Amino acid sequence: MEKKYNLVTFGEVMMRLSSPSASRVAESDVFNKCAGGSELNVAAGASILGAKTAFITSIPDNFNGSYVRGKIREKGVFDEYVLTDESDDARLGIYYYEFGASPKKPTVVYDRNASSFSKISLDDIPEEVFDTAEIFHTCGISLALNKNLNSVTKALIRKFKEHGALISFDCNFRANLWSVEEARAAVTEILPLIDIFFVSEETNYHMMGRTGELEDIMKSYSSDYGVSLVFTTQRKVKSPKTHDFTSIAYDAAADKFFTEKPYLDIDIVDRVGSGDAYCSGVLGGLIKHSDTLTALQYGNAAAAIKCTVPGDMISTDKRELESIIKEHNSDGPKREMNR
Amino acid sequence: MEKKYNLVTFGEVMMRLSSPSASRVAESDVFNKCAGGSELNVAAGASILGAKTAFITSIPDNFNGSYVRGKIREKGVFDEYVLTDESDDARLGIYYYEFGASPKKPTVVYDRNASSFSKISLDDIPEEVFDTAEIFHTCGISLALNKNLNSVTKALIRKFKEHGALISFDCNFRANLWSVEEARAAVTEILPLIDIFFVSEETNYHMMGRTGELEDIMKSYSSDYGVSLVFTTQRKVKSPKTHDFTSIAYDAAADKFFTEKPYLDIDIVDRVGSGDAYCSGVLGGLIKHSDTLTALQYGNAAAAIKCTVPGDMISTDKRELESIIKEHNSDGPKREMNR
Amino acid sequence: MEKKYNLVTFGEVMMRLSSPSASRVAESDVFNKCAGGSELNVAAGASILGAKTAFITSIPDNFNGSYVRGKIREKGVFDEYVLTDESDDARLGIYYYEFGASPKKPTVVYDRNASSFSKISLDDIPEEVFDTAEIFHTCGISLALNKNLNSVTKALIRKFKEHGALISFDCNFRANLWSVEEARAAVTEILPLIDIFFVSEETNYHMMGRTGELEDIMKSYSSDYGVSLVFTTQRKVKSPKTHDFTSIAYDAAADKFFTEKPYLDIDIVDRVGSGDAYCSGVLGGLIKHSDTLTALQYGNAAAAIKCTVPGDMISTDKRELESIIKEHNSDGPKREMNR
Amino acid sequence: MEKKYNLVTFGEVMMRLSSPSASRVAESDVFNKCAGGSELNVAAGASILGAKTAFITSIPDNFNGSYVRGKIREKGVFDEYVLTDESDDARLGIYYYEFGASPKKPTVVYDRNASSFSKISLDDIPEEVFDTAEIFHTCGISLALNKNLNSVTKALIRKFKEHGALISFDCNFRANLWSVEEARAAVTEILPLIDIFFVSEETNYHMMGRTGELEDIMKSYSSDYGVSLVFTTQRKVKSPKTHDFTSIAYDAAADKFFTEKPYLDIDIVDRVGSGDAYCSGVLGGLIKHSDTLTALQYGNAAAAIKCTVPGDMISTDKRELESIIKEHNSDGPKREMNR
Amino acid sequence: MEKKYNLVTFGEVMMRLSSPSASRVAESDVFNKCAGGSELNVAAGASILGAKTAFITSIPDNFNGSYVRGKIREKGVFDEYVLTDESDDARLGIYYYEFGASPKKPTVVYDRNASSFSKISLDDIPEEVFDTAEIFHTCGISLALNKNLNSVTKALIRKFKEHGALISFDCNFRANLWSVEEARAAVTEILPLIDIFFVSEETNYHMMGRTGELEDIMKSYSSDYGVSLVFTTQRKVKSPKTHDFTSIAYDAAADKFFTEKPYLDIDIVDRVGSGDAYCSGVLGGLIKHSDTLTALQYGNAAAAIKCTVPGDMISTDKRELESIIKEHNSDGPKREMNR
Amino acid sequence: MEKKYNLVTFGEVMMRLSSPSASRVAESDVFNKCAGGSELNVAAGASILGAKTAFITSIPDNFNGSYVRGKIREKGVFDEYVLTDESDDARLGIYYYEFGASPKKPTVVYDRNASSFSKISLDDIPEEVFDTAEIFHTCGISLALNKNLNSVTKALIRKFKEHGALISFDCNFRANLWSVEEARAAVTEILPLIDIFFVSEETNYHMMGRTGELEDIMKSYSSDYGVSLVFTTQRKVKSPKTHDFTSIAYDAAADKFFTEKPYLDIDIVDRVGSGDAYCSGVLGGLIKHSDTLTALQYGNAAAAIKCTVPGDMISTDKRELESIIKEHNSDGPKREMNR
Repeated sequence: MEKKYNLVTFGEVMMRLSSPSASRVAESDVFNKCAGGSELNVAAGASILGAKTAFITSIPDNFNGSYVRGKIREKGVFDEYVLTDESDDARLGIYYYEFGASPKKPTVVYDRNASSFSKISLDDIPEEVFDTAEIFHTCGISLALNKNLNSVTKALIRKFKEHGALISFDCNFRANLWSVEEARAAVTEILPLIDIFFVSEETNYHMMGRTGELEDIMKSYSSDYGVSLVFTTQRKVKSPKTHDFTSIAYDAAADKFFTEKPYLDIDIVDRVGSGDAYCSGVLGGLIKHSDTLTALQYGNAAAAIKCTVPGDMISTDKRELESIIKEHNSDGPKREMNR
Repeated sequence: MEKKYNLVTFGEVMMRLSSPSASRVAESDVFNKCAGGSELNVAAGASILGAKTAFITSIPDNFNGSYVRGKIREKGVFDEYVLTDESDDARLGIYYYEFGASPKKPTVVYDRNASSFSKISLDDIPEEVFDTAEIFHTCGISLALNKNLNSVTKALIRKFKEHGALISFDCNFRANLWSVEEARAAVTEILPLIDIFFVSEETNYHMMGRTGELEDIMKSYSSDYGVSLVFTTQRKVKSPKTHDFTSIAYDAAADKFFTEKPYLDIDIVDRVGSGDAYCSGVLGGLIKHSDTLTALQYGNAAAAIKCTVPGDMISTDKRELESIIKEHNSDGPKREMNR
Repeated sequence: MEKKYNLVTFGEVMMRLSSPSASRVAESDVFNKCAGGSELNVAAGASILGAKTAFITSIPDNFNGSYVRGKIREKGVFDEYVLTDESDDARLGIYYYEFGASPKKPTVVYDRNASSFSKISLDDIPEEVFDTAEIFHTCGISLALNKNLNSVTKALIRKFKEHGALISFDCNFRANLWSVEEARAAVTEILPLIDIFFVSEETNYHMMGRTGELEDIMKSYSSDYGVSLVFTTQRKVKSPKTHDFTSIAYDAAADKFFTEKPYLDIDIVDRVGSGDAYCSGVLGGLIKHSDTLTALQYGNAAAAIKCTVPGDMISTDKRELESIIKEHNSDGPKREMNR
Repeated sequence: MEKKYNLVTFGEVMMRLSSPSASRVAESDVFNKCAGGSELNVAAGASILGAKTAFITSIPDNFNGSYVRGKIREKGVFDEYVLTDESDDARLGIYYYEFGASPKKPTVVYDRNASSFSKISLDDIPEEVFDTAEIFHTCGISLALNKNLNSVTKALIRKFKEHGALISFDCNFRANLWSVEEARAAVTEILPLIDIFFVSEETNYHMMGRTGELEDIMKSYSSDYGVSLVFTTQRKVKSPKTHDFTSIAYDAAADKFFTEKPYLDIDIVDRVGSGDAYCSGVLGGLIKHSDTLTALQYGNAAAAIKCTVPGDMISTDKRELESIIKEHNSDGPKREMNR
Repeated sequence: MEKKYNLVTFGEVMMRLSSPSASRVAESDVFNKCAGGSELNVAAGASILGAKTAFITSIPDNFNGSYVRGKIREKGVFDEYVLTDESDDARLGIYYYEFGASPKKPTVVYDRNASSFSKISLDDIPEEVFDTAEIFHTCGISLALNKNLNSVTKALIRKFKEHGALISFDCNFRANLWSVEEARAAVTEILPLIDIFFVSEETNYHMMGRTGELEDIMKSYSSDYGVSLVFTTQRKVKSPKTHDFTSIAYDAAADKFFTEKPYLDIDIVDRVGSGDAYCSGVLGGLIKHSDTLTALQYGNAAAAIKCTVPGDMISTDKRELESIIKEHNSDGPKREMNR
Repeated sequence: MEKKYNLVTFGEVMMRLSSPSASRVAESDVFNKCAGGSELNVAAGASILGAKTAFITSIPDNFNGSYVRGKIREKGVFDEYVLTDESDDARLGIYYYEFGASPKKPTVVYDRNASSFSKISLDDIPEEVFDTAEIFHTCGISLALNKNLNSVTKALIRKFKEHGALISFDCNFRANLWSVEEARAAVTEILPLIDIFFVSEETNYHMMGRTGELEDIMKSYSSDYGVSLVFTTQRKVKSPKTHDFTSIAYDAAADKFFTEKPYLDIDIVDRVGSGDAYCSGVLGGLIKHSDTLTALQYGNAAAAIKCTVPGDMISTDKRELESIIKEHNSDGPKREMNR
């Protein structure tokens, strides 16, 4: 490895506060805490596969910031570019989460305005970081949060690109942050800079406003904007407790599509971060194996496993991940237990 | 509103003690507590829809009574007619609950004898209350508990009726409290006073001893006794973890039946109080919308939501309730999450 | 009672998030939640003594707001003037709390900027409320939070005064909100409107900048500004786990001072809200007994009891409060247990 | 050993429900459970010292009964005489407990009326049990509960005495169960049957109505009624969190008094059952060592240890108990830790 | 009953440490504890049906040993042959457990080397025990653990056989302990001593290396080695959360097979110990009813119930077990709840 | 900084399992987990002060190893020299802990035999590490564990010394691991290599067998063996809940002693690791400030703070640590709270 990190990501890390299991936020006297944020989740997942990763963000200089820094480190993500906001009104963004049970849906309430991250400036970020990354990853949420972040995020993408990093980008459309039209324009603006593009099946049609066959749409990102790899996830939500999941990849260099049969009847423990886990599996797979199908398999398995563990960040190890991939692709008898 | 309250209910509030999640009462060193009682559950649910509600009961003058009073208030039910029993042997009725997991069934053990409520006297209840209610609601449990309550409950029904309240009554047959014959006789005795009658499909045949088509049976309560509205719930217990639910209403004035397609595969978190939530949705719907179908839809959604939250009393808000009704009746794509 | 409420208070209610017992916020994956705010705490405590109380505030229209509304009701405080903020960026103020253990101090971090309360406008508050209060209470925090609240709070004080309410005010100086000079000027400006004035021993000297004998200082508020009753608390912090507490009252009409021997070696479970509990005991005592010494005794006992229970709001009942006062003033043998 | 059991005890076992640590019963949504009852606590403690013990009681035939039976067995107490009440209204007595923190006192609320035990009849108890005991122990609570138990308890004392058992009795006066006069008469009636008599210092003066020097009083039980051993406990309650404890024994055969220096500054975790632990230590010590001073030392240490562990029954082992006795009586340096 | 115990079992008891519900061991700061071991689980389950049972093992003389002894007793298993290892390096075997959620599998990690049990010697076991058992039960794990245990276990089987006990043996193949070949040889060696033989469907083909029809294989154990009763379990693992279960019995004396329709869609709370619960139901059934089909029904129901409760040992009572058997075999309407 | 790390430490990291708060291990169904080990604790604490630290150890390749690695990283200690043991019998050492409450002592039970660390070989440790450290720290426990570790530890000390690191050593005598004589010989053997020597007051007299004045003894390590800095801690255990703490330093270069007044009445939440926190404060202080008195002040404050937080490793931040030092040395009024 010539660069210091295989993967550097940029985004907000929030504290997630959720009422335990089936209880209501409105009735519970306890919150479970965890740390999460789309781009951090990606770095954390990729590090499990052996990638060396770092995360750029800004957190407050108080015990909430310390909590989050501990979690970043614990996950094997290097924190040297996690900036500390020492201002008086430094705050950590929060999101509140309540689990679903059919017909009640999972519910998210954001309280991330005026967070330390929302005020980050390009000048805060040390110039040296741009030389450290083989791949730089961010997502649509960072573009959407506010004007400042929109321009900082775009500047970072350009800077990393200039210093030779591959640019990875996940659309991650959030209707509560911006409109379909704003999102489409912003993503379209940066598409020419993107090497690895993550866009869910639904986002292709809805936010990106494409029509026609899925494969044609995926291919168009390469033909129109020069994207090297396009990954499109396919999730079927059978109930808040059961999902199916797979994905399709388009590899422009080979002009080939890759997919595998879906993971069926995934037991949903905590669905949050499953899309990020997918990106982390794909990127980790690419870093370690440089093979699109293998990367997609890591992505699918990571997305499925994430659903079975609590928290925003995937928790697994390479051995488990690979044994799940292996069994998913085997026709033999399944063991009931690892023992 | 001319009366002080839209809805006044009468009944026992108990402390429910349950072993956490899947653990056995016989093995657990912890009880989860909550407060509940059929008629309180109805008042609490109706208040979520904006009805102004009060509850008549008697609780002991100790920390258990204070616990229960706090829960009554928290739910937006006015406690001015919650009497305090200062006698030496004042006690709160208890019921113990253990959750089921197929093939093990949920189990209830009652310990409600000699509770403060069981000794309530008509003289304890201030005369002024009879003028405060647009609707008065109680259920078969209050009739069944003991002789004293049988006569107090019947007296209250008559008093409220005389003061111009509509009378709402839920059969709520409990085989451990009285025989089918006793229950049938008692309910038949008060049927002429009832305006809104709740009777489950099974109770029509079993406890009420009716035969023939369900719609004919429902209609007969109106033709034979003058009931204005008859609501019959239909629950299909697929397993302790999964139910289907819907209901049928008969509106005598319009001589019409109303129903809607069932909620399928409800994820059961805690099934207790689902029937009461149904009544609360119907009554709240009637109070706010005076429309039988709308009331039935509130009732069905409330019954379904109750199953997805812990405790005897429904926890939701008007917005969630209405968005679930809307999605249930829509053919469009379903959102995975409220965000 | 000629007015609808004995006591109406105005202020912010926050969600308090604390790490369990001795754990660090920076290390704990759980937060305990409770609701609290100085003026709410006062209303809640007074209602325990039998006062009819209401609270004016603004909370977001989401599950956090519902949580807080439930707690307000549970405590017997009427919520008809608890406004709901339906704006997109409605938020509940938060404060984070970590307990102390010598030599580590308890730590508070506020995250209350841009809360729904911080944006409350005089126009949001229904004109009818000004006629409902015998006593109106607020404190220095509401004056200090921001310019908007400074003027809203002062306007409310004037309005209630005009409609015949007694004005109760607690200095509650917070050095993180404003300077000693700003606080002194603001309090001095409203002193002519205040009937019942709460000011801790330390605040007399520090924030109010007085010098000389404590009794002379207390008396000066009456002679200089017309305050009827001045209450000064005296807390001795022996360690984060052990405090002593008493107070002194000056009754201008009688031109007399009142005090009692301190509560010694109070076992500190949770010290937050002890000062508010004091105010609540005093106001509840005045409402029910119109006697300054009795009010002071209720205040001292309430402050002491608050320290022994978790949360911002006192939890007790009239019987316990009075038995503690009685035993504190008795020389006989102490029972070990209430049994 | 000629008899099957060294010690057989008779009494009620209750379920104790307490709010966790410092929380209020009136505010907590959780109860901690344990099983306890004075005479069971004595049997359980004695079994730790190696005594073979059995317990006579009656419990309901439901999951609460199963819970309690499991706890009896776990403690090494044989349950062959634990009767099962299969009646419809079988119930387990309950007591609610809230911990204290100065100036708030610990609080107990009983809900034991109409328990399965309260209805036990002499005929339920198999005749064979009377031949199994070297020592039979019961206490004043069993005499006081109701008329039925008063006569059953006295009959059992006589029966066991007739079959050659030594009779051990603990006064355990409870003012909420009977008056001083009733208690004194009842205890006086059975004193001629008692061999080992436990009476606290305060009970000697208050309930037993004695005056004069403590040693003279203790001696009088032997001279007047033929008691062989009298044990009087001396507890100093410094605060709900700190006690001192020791005791005095009078051995009539030797006509000697025994005592030791008090355990000072006992850290109170849970004070309930400390007196029973004392009896258990004394009886276990007598059974294993036949030495009054040794028995008293076991009793004192057991009483002190009980205060440091949660629950009604002492939890320790012989090794810990003896090392605490040894260190208490040593002047050498104390280890900080067992390691 | 001529012998002291209906059933004596021999094996290791371990402490099981599992991360709560869906959390990862690698991320959780808490372990849930329980005690379990195949042969203990069998004794515990049989005692629920009324069998008098004892367990032979060795545990360390520390608080972990005390924990386990308490659990053995609580379950009604007599502990007089539970030996205490007082050596310096005495230790309790541990296994770590993490629950599964599809596609993540449940995971077990053993840490049982050098446990006190692993060093047990035949000389430690008092000769008297061999005369106490009507049935002696052990399993393949005890044979497999190490050389010492292999010979101790075989010696015990022979000793108990010589003293007139029936020998019950469960294959319980564990691939992490020994190879298929080693296991097959060891089991084949003792088959001539076995009266009651438990072997799962899969083990018949895999570990025992049999081919052909299942019934022929089962019959061959009787014809070739003289086994009286052969029980073969049939489990279908639909997901970590849902299993089907039934079994087949071959009764050599009657030369007959017995089975019943499977329990479908068992809600898996904790699958560990389900096979042991099966053996316990069968043995308990045989002891109480001497009827092969009844025994098999107890076994199936016990296996199913075990899956619905946490921990290694089944928790139920005779009434529940029998009502589940009854309902399983009835065509009438099912109650939703025990009430 | 010329070297990669300011501080590299070597030792075992164990999983500590403790029963929650005051509960007994023998009775609790839950363990709280944390990771700890003397030399890890030192590295973790020093990193809080800004030192760059790494830790050398060996952990198993399973979820327990992952747990511990996560904790090492979370604390900011670099894990590149944390080796992974992939052998079949790899295991993490455990120690069990139960808290004390007077007169019951805290109790530790070790289960660390045959851990992955106990088998570490010098060859496992990459040669490159010896060039990375400014200071190398280890302690007497690593010398004492077994013969292998005794020689590995001594070899590491020599290697690091040869590569220019300062050697820091803490006696940390454990009577359960070796005798006073063995320990004294082993420490004496390496004293000539030691630059920074930590030895408690008691260890000077007991394990090191010195007599006479404490200052003379401390000085002798420098004069006899060339130690540069000697730190002696002085702890007064008033009860399991209250300690006093200070220390004395001898600086050979300056030939001067340093001390400060003790921290009095430290509230003990969890005393484990307080001595390690002391070393970490001293080493962190030396690294950042090169001043003996400042280092000692950091050490004392760190030792005191450690007692107030749960777990083996100190949790604090530089700001809190320094504010506690400042207040400890100030005579002005103390704030009650950080706010």
